[in-house]
Order: sequence, then structure tokens, then C-alpha cells
Amino acid sequence: MKSRRSYRAFFAGLAVLAGVAAPAFAEEPVQPIEPPKEINLAQAELGKKLYFDPRLSRSGFISCNSCHNLSMGGTDNLKTSIGHKWQRGPINAPTVLNSSLNVAQFWDGRAADLQEQAGGPIANPKEMGFSHTLAVDLLASIPGYVTEFRLVFGTGEIDIERVTHAIAEFEKTLVTPNAPFDRWLLGEADAISPQALEGYQLFKNSGCVACHYGPGLGGSSFQKMGLVAPYPTHNEAIGLAAVTGNEADRFKFKVPTLRNIELTYPYFHDGEAQTMTEAVDVMGRIQLGRTFSDAENASIVAFLRTLTGDQPRFELPQLPPSSDTTPPPIPFD
Amino acid sequence: MKSRRSYRAFFAGLAVLAGVAAPAFAEEPVQPIEPPKEINLAQAELGKKLYFDPRLSRSGFISCNSCHNLSMGGTDNLKTSIGHKWQRGPINAPTVLNSSLNVAQFWDGRAADLQEQAGGPIANPKEMGFSHTLAVDLLASIPGYVTEFRLVFGTGEIDIERVTHAIAEFEKTLVTPNAPFDRWLLGEADAISPQALEGYQLFKNSGCVACHYGPGLGGSSFQKMGLVAPYPTHNEAIGLAAVTGNEADRFKFKVPTLRNIELTYPYFHDGEAQTMTEAVDVMGRIQLGRTFSDAENASIVAFLRTLTGDQPRFELPQLPPSSDTTPPPIPFD
Repeated sequence: MKSRRSYRAFFAGLAVLAGVAAPAFAEEPVQPIEPPKEINLAQAELGKKLYFDPRLSRSGFISCNSCHNLSMGGTDNLKTSIGHKWQRGPINAPTVLNSSLNVAQFWDGRAADLQEQAGGPIANPKEMGFSHTLAVDLLASIPGYVTEFRLVFGTGEIDIERVTHAIAEFEKTLVTPNAPFDRWLLGEADAISPQALEGYQLFKNSGCVACHYGPGLGGSSFQKMGLVAPYPTHNEAIGLAAVTGNEADRFKFKVPTLRNIELTYPYFHDGEAQTMTEAVDVMGRIQLGRTFSDAENASIVAFLRTLTGDQPRFELPQLPPSSDTTPPPIPFD
Repeated sequence: MKSRRSYRAFFAGLAVLAGVAAPAFAEEPVQPIEPPKEINLAQAELGKKLYFDPRLSRSGFISCNSCHNLSMGGTDNLKTSIGHKWQRGPINAPTVLNSSLNVAQFWDGRAADLQEQAGGPIANPKEMGFSHTLAVDLLASIPGYVTEFRLVFGTGEIDIERVTHAIAEFEKTLVTPNAPFDRWLLGEADAISPQALEGYQLFKNSGCVACHYGPGLGGSSFQKMGLVAPYPTHNEAIGLAAVTGNEADRFKFKVPTLRNIELTYPYFHDGEAQTMTEAVDVMGRIQLGRTFSDAENASIVAFLRTLTGDQPRFELPQLPPSSDTTPPPIPFD
């Protein structure tokens, strides 16, 4: 996990080494998103298929893409998700976009990385309702997958580590560079409007940036929801305390990324803020002890809209068909 | 609706007009699928977005693609579909692939064409659980759609006719040409195996082709399920009789296309046949009064596997985001 300071030092250092002027964003607490690097394309292609494959759920109906929909900002745009047999999920589905930048996964950080996260929903009775053993056995019954695992991993032996590794490799490709704000950071002065620039200044000066910093504008740290005033919610999640057992961590959640926030409504871990205007207002009051005026709120929202980057572009994957020995899905018991 | 004879006459006529030898398939009861023609691309692009948009359902969770999944042969690979609030659908979801070739839509033919079909599930309380009025109002609250409707239809006025017209235009693009069997029909002698060719001869000689003819190998007529022996099922659908009110039409269903059958399991209107082997066996016994030997069955299945064509290739669409005035989805009442 890189701190704000280390990012600044890193970029400043780069500039010194290169013997050139520091980049426009060297002194900014937000950095541009970089395009993905060092991707194993074969693994990512396999992972893309798995990401879209509802056979990884007991019902045969729910895939990773059901709740982290890549047509919709990597979310489902629901307060909380719909799981196996239409169960109501406990928490708002965070976007998968740029999730490789996160310090940890899930709102409470209980998974260290994308690979660990990917195994969670498959085996969660409220989400995909399957098990790792059943998922692996199912994939092993599909000749097209066996061949592709052999190509990608050098062995047709399918196990949950390889499955989640491939999904994670695909998810690493899901970054969204080239947002208007990134182009501004990189020196394109008219890439954002004067109102948005004003919003960015206010975003920095009023303290939003204390949590929403770095290339992800969030995802780098945990913070208490309701820092200066309590946050009223019916949601039962207690955040990081569920992982650490430490009472001081109660209601501490991973700071969500603001990248593509225009697409990832509704907001907060309980999904109770439907609009950016509402979210900015609530954040000001309960995290900063500040009531933004309508004009201030509007300028911050204008800034937030500049954070929508290039969405992932790829062909809808074609899944290898089941074989005669593939266990049929069980949507209704 | 073109009959088998008119197709033959058409192709033979073409050959005469062109002053060339008749094409290899002129005397065959099956014709190659032709690539889509006269597509309005702007309408189809808009329709693609609508096809993938779960906001056309009350829950915000179910899109056309949920049950007619274009990663999975245009079906959901379930016996019967999962609808709003996990309701069990009444019938197997037919593939959307090549559905433009069908004489009518739905198993009982109650919709004349793709446009009429597209409006059905949106307003069906057991499927997407929405209404046409709510769907149209929702789309009208999304600036990105209003702009695109203006571009495509010359007006930002959204109505259900334009919505379903655009979806139908997209669906017209979902044909799957270039199957190995089509390449054989077009003269590529080694495009299919000797076993598959044997299967095709048996398919013709034993009478399968009486219903499964034309470029769709089905989709052109209605036939009674259980023609020579009753078909035992718990499914309550009565087929064409529900549309005509004519007792003679009881258990008459639209003959399903065999195109891409390798991908569209499970089979029959009740989805009770899990494998092609089982489907061929049942069809032989109840439609033809004939029990295929294992070797015969295997050769027919080998033929059926040659009917998998080029699947639709396109980029996953990006949906325009909701606005602050868009009514939120209602997944849980």
C-alpha cells in the first residue's frame, strides 16, 4: 500500500532521475490511472469466460458479471445485490473496475487480493450458492475448459486456485484510464470545465482528499463511516471490526474509489445514497462536519463526473458448452 | 413463410438465371444460413444496449440477455427460466439465435414477429415484471438514451414501439452462418465427417427433415409433440391451441430450430431432455415411431454438431447511466 506521500515522492523522484520537469500531477494527491501492465493475456481470456459463466453458481443463473456488470460500471446499480434464490445481499456490490488498485477487497477488507475475493461469492450461500468443489468438478466436465486450462496453465487439472487466479488476471485488465480528470492531470488544461476544477480545489481544501487520494481516489485505506457525526443506517455491517475483532474498527469501511462514480450509483456500503449530490452532502456532514452549499455541492459533483474513464472494451465471450456428463444446474430445489 | 419447395425452386431458378450449374444444395431440404442483410445499424446498436439493459425489468436485475444469453447459444441452458423474484418460468427459453428465420415467435407462435415478442417478457409479471409504460418512462429519464433515440429515430420521444423495434433490429443480426454443415452444403466436401454425413442421410431418410427443414432446420411450422406416441410431461403448456382455441392444435408447438443445438441444451418445450442423444431418441420414438440404434443415434448427433455456426461477435455494450430523476429499481418489495 502506497501512501499519498510515497506517490508524490515517487513521481518527483522519477522527474529528477529523468532530468526533466516534474509532471503536472507530481504535487497532486491524485494520480492518473495507468493502463494495465504485465497481463498474462491467455489467463485473462480464460478468466473473462469464467467471469461471465453462470455455471459457477448453483442455479446456473448468476455469474460474477451479474452483480459486477461490466455494461454498468462494474456494479449492479442496486442498493444491495440479488443472490441465489433472490436472497437480499447484505451490502452494496462494490465496482470491480480498478479494483486491482485497492489495498484489500470487500468493504471490510477481508480478502487480501482479487484472487482471494473471487472465491468468495462462488461459495457464499447467499450469493452464487455453490461450492469450490462443485464448481471445479463442473468445469472439469467441460472439454472446452479443460483444453483451455491446459493451454493456459500447462495442465488440464482444474482447481480453485487456477480458477480464481484466471478471474483475477481478467479483473486486473479492468482499469479505466483516460478520464477527463486524468487528461487534466497530464497537462491538458481544458480537459475539465472551470466548475469541475473549482470542485477539485474544494475537494482538496475541504478534506475529501484525506481519504479519496491516489490513482483510485479511494481504495487505499479504511475510514470510519460517521467520523464526526453518526451515520444512521439499518444495514448490519460493522466493517473492519468483523475482520480484526477490534472494537475500534467498528464501522470502519474501505474507502470506496471515486473512479467512474457517475456509473456506480447507488452509494455507500448500504447503497442508501441514490445520487452524487446526496452522497456529497452526507459525506460533508458526517465525515467533515461541513455543510456544502448547493453551488459547492454542484462543483464537487462536476469534478466527480470527470472521473469516468475509458470503460473496458472487449468482445462478449463465448462459453464452451457443457458435455453430457456436466451436472445440470439446480435453480429450483 | 417459405416452404421447402419454394426454397428449392428459388435456388434452382437463381441458377438458371445466372446460367450456371445449380448450387450443391439446390436439391437439399436444408439451406445455408445467409448473413444478415438490410440491417439498420444505428437501430441495431441501440437495440443491443436495450437487450443488455436490466433496467427494463422491475428489479433492475433481469435483461433480455439473462434468459437469451448470447454467451451461451442465446439461451439460459435451464429447463425453464428464472423470472422476477426467482419465479419458475412455464416453458424452456428458445434460443434468440436465428429467430428472425422463424415463422412466428414463442413456442406457441403467439407473437407474429421479433418486435411483438420483445414486448412480452418486459411486461410479464413472471419474467421481467415491469410494464411498457414504466419501461418507457424509465428510458426517457436517461439522457444517453434520449439522445440515441433522437439519432436513430429522428425523435427523442421514446415509446414501446421504437424500443421493441430497436431490439428486434438487433436480434435480426443474431444469425449464425458458416456452420460446418453450411460449408458442406456450399460444396466443401470435407467440412463434415463421414459419420456426420451418414447422420444427415438418416436425418433425411427417417423423416426428421419433414419438420426440421429450411435454413433454420425448424422454426417454419408447428407440429404436435407426441405425433405417434404420447409425450409424458408435467409441463402445462398446450401449445398452439392456447392461441387458436382449436382443440386440434393441442400440444402443437413451433418446431424448434436445430441450429446451434450443441449450445442450446436442455431440449424440448419442457427442457426435459438434457442431451442430444436423449432428444434424438425421444424424437424418434414419439414423432417417427422409430427406435434409433446407438450407432444411428450417434451419427445423427454427429450431424447435429455440424450445425454450430459462427456465434455473434460484438463488443459488450456500455449502457448510458441513470440520471437523478430515474426511478430506482425495485428488487425487493
